[in-house]
Amino acid sequence: MRLAVYLPPQAEQRACPVLYFLAGLTCTEETATIKAGAQRLAAELGLILVMPDTSPRDTGFDGATGDWEFGEGAGFYVDATEAPWSSRFRMHSYVVDELPALIAANFPADTTRSGICGHSMGGHGALTIALKHPGRYRSVSAFAPIVAPSQVPWGRKALPRYLGDDPAAWAGYDACELVRRQTFPGTILIDQGEADAFLEAQLKPELFDQACAEAGQSLLLRRHAGYDHSYWFIASFIDDHLRHHAKALAWQTM
Amino acid sequence: MRLAVYLPPQAEQRACPVLYFLAGLTCTEETATIKAGAQRLAAELGLILVMPDTSPRDTGFDGATGDWEFGEGAGFYVDATEAPWSSRFRMHSYVVDELPALIAANFPADTTRSGICGHSMGGHGALTIALKHPGRYRSVSAFAPIVAPSQVPWGRKALPRYLGDDPAAWAGYDACELVRRQTFPGTILIDQGEADAFLEAQLKPELFDQACAEAGQSLLLRRHAGYDHSYWFIASFIDDHLRHHAKALAWQTM
Repeated sequence: MRLAVYLPPQAEQRACPVLYFLAGLTCTEETATIKAGAQRLAAELGLILVMPDTSPRDTGFDGATGDWEFGEGAGFYVDATEAPWSSRFRMHSYVVDELPALIAANFPADTTRSGICGHSMGGHGALTIALKHPGRYRSVSAFAPIVAPSQVPWGRKALPRYLGDDPAAWAGYDACELVRRQTFPGTILIDQGEADAFLEAQLKPELFDQACAEAGQSLLLRRHAGYDHSYWFIASFIDDHLRHHAKALAWQTM
Repeated sequence: MRLAVYLPPQAEQRACPVLYFLAGLTCTEETATIKAGAQRLAAELGLILVMPDTSPRDTGFDGATGDWEFGEGAGFYVDATEAPWSSRFRMHSYVVDELPALIAANFPADTTRSGICGHSMGGHGALTIALKHPGRYRSVSAFAPIVAPSQVPWGRKALPRYLGDDPAAWAGYDACELVRRQTFPGTILIDQGEADAFLEAQLKPELFDQACAEAGQSLLLRRHAGYDHSYWFIASFIDDHLRHHAKALAWQTM
């Protein structure tokens, strides 16, 4: 698995907290690294940024390439249970277990202080992972996330192929379903552009807003007129997300 | 010619000053647009950013592609005089005349308030253009510029093919030569990384430092330990350059 890591200057002196950034469909470990513009403020706040690839690569599986909505570059942050995907497409376990261990072993990281953020499919990844493992992440945020994959075309296309046809399996990776089972201890920050071409058909933040309200989950959902689904949108608001995470991850002395 | 333009929010209310950013070898109009991270502060300062491509494209000329140091993507911001390049590779005139007219006609730009900045080959472009046309630009800065193309391998390879074998022709596009003929009214800002792999063989900022001292040109040359030739270096210091230009370009009421 490929990944990108940004170390702030503070990491030369002490172990620093970690913010994972999960990218969306078609993206790689380079996308947020190059386009999000997160390093400047991460350097000030003393945050390590970890930006993994979005799926295994070069799997050779039939159908793994050639479709931007499924397969390589479109792992949906699930542990697949259907062959052949189940042998390689285990992005959920990778992000939750393997990756933090790798970071802890190789970098001056305090992985007990971790936050998670993501965009689109990666926002879905961040929300579902934080909701499933609230003890492992102190903070969570998302840009234009897929919040109800069980109900939208992207999820209805990918989840059955990774997880089988039982909607109960999809529910285990559906933020709207998960938040009803267990809330996250802290406010979830979500930014959404109102000029996002995927807003109505694929993203539907109103469903998560409603689910959070019913579950008693604290949510700050901000809608921004004129912003689309791109990394220009992310770069415009990434500083707010970094501060959101830093507040939860910082040492008491900071 | 392809180009990228960033309009700050202030441009909805009034004509804004313009900062041109010239990219280096192998780059396009997308490189600084995506990698420099200049938009955030440009939005605050009310600067229009204009980021052109580095050469004509799809020329079909023999030898125009396949060599990253010459031809397409490597126009060196000269008006070529040698065939076949002279018919298309006229980047100097393009940046100085054609591009500002295009910007003035199509965007809410106050092109009487213009600054110019660039990186590497584009730093060479910014310096030579400002020194040749000091009345057209109120401010100039560069990251890791080529300052003495007549004396370094990149220039010694490209300039004869564009301009012929007479060194006098090269001198018209050599910042170290130009500054001795006519200084720029204002301080030139240059940032240079000391871990830049091209520093000793191609960049030689000490030659420009010496030429400026001899010519009475005000120069702020900053050397930064540990920084290389990449856009990570640019992104780290772009805000200082934007402020340098904004100070020269701003309205008196700002």
